[in-house]
Amino acid sequence: MSGGGIPAYRAKIEPDWIDYNGHLRDAYYGLAASYAVDDLMDYLGLDAAYRKSTHCTLYSLEMHIHFLHEVKESDDLKVMTSILDFDRKRIHLGCTFVCSRLGEPAAAADMMLLHVHQGEKPATAAFPEHVTAKLSALKLSSAAREAFGPSSRKIELQRR
Amino acid sequence: MSGGGIPAYRAKIEPDWIDYNGHLRDAYYGLAASYAVDDLMDYLGLDAAYRKSTHCTLYSLEMHIHFLHEVKESDDLKVMTSILDFDRKRIHLGCTFVCSRLGEPAAAADMMLLHVHQGEKPATAAFPEHVTAKLSALKLSSAAREAFGPSSRKIELQRR
Repeated sequence: MSGGGIPAYRAKIEPDWIDYNGHLRDAYYGLAASYAVDDLMDYLGLDAAYRKSTHCTLYSLEMHIHFLHEVKESDDLKVMTSILDFDRKRIHLGCTFVCSRLGEPAAAADMMLLHVHQGEKPATAAFPEHVTAKLSALKLSSAAREAFGPSSRKIELQRR
Repeated sequence: MSGGGIPAYRAKIEPDWIDYNGHLRDAYYGLAASYAVDDLMDYLGLDAAYRKSTHCTLYSLEMHIHFLHEVKESDDLKVMTSILDFDRKRIHLGCTFVCSRLGEPAAAADMMLLHVHQGEKPATAAFPEHVTAKLSALKLSSAAREAFGPSSRKIELQRR
């Protein structure tokens, strides 16, 4: 469950992130992942200076999250991001939520991110060379990508 | 895109829900959906009094969200929930995010919710009869369920 070398994002669990069930509210896993993506953008060179000078940024297209274990207010929480795949303008990102109390991930998510030029109307844009080079270096091997999970799928009730 | 009769949840977009891209941060669609599920629980009779007397509640197992259009701070935002399917202890829920400025949904999500008894260790529990009856009355027709979308799927980059 390697992050492929990308530094983990350490989330700070705020008291109001805990719901009436006494555990981390589902949406705040998403917020931790969103902040982890901000950190990843800095790491990839898609930082505030880049966004300001190019008017380019990342938009989230789609996200799938599996909630695997309860996280409590007293827990630490790290989000490990990994580059599952990418093309000229999209990144397929994996997120693994890790809590030191647990022997396995607390949650897992994957998402699709799109590189966009924010003009009068947002338009897709190709990554610059320096970002593509970083993505190539960080992209997981096929085996590591296969091992990432649980990954997205069609959600449905299967009758036994 | 009917909610099958369930009242819509009206989200309040807070200023800090807007990110450096000038639009609603991805995770806050999830928070609006989470609050919509709270409202739905009240509507189904899984409210605070029920939770207190039975120690039963809903846990989120899985969620898939498609971000379809940008939502701005000046927008209104409603979340329409619909019962796509259910069984003895699970609900497959659809969420459609509606903004009056847009002619089509701003986002769509589907999620799996599990009815859990919170004892020393959480354990799955069957819904009581009054909840099953409500779910039966609210469940979308097959045609309406087929029309719900975009629904969850495997996220991947497809090469052309």
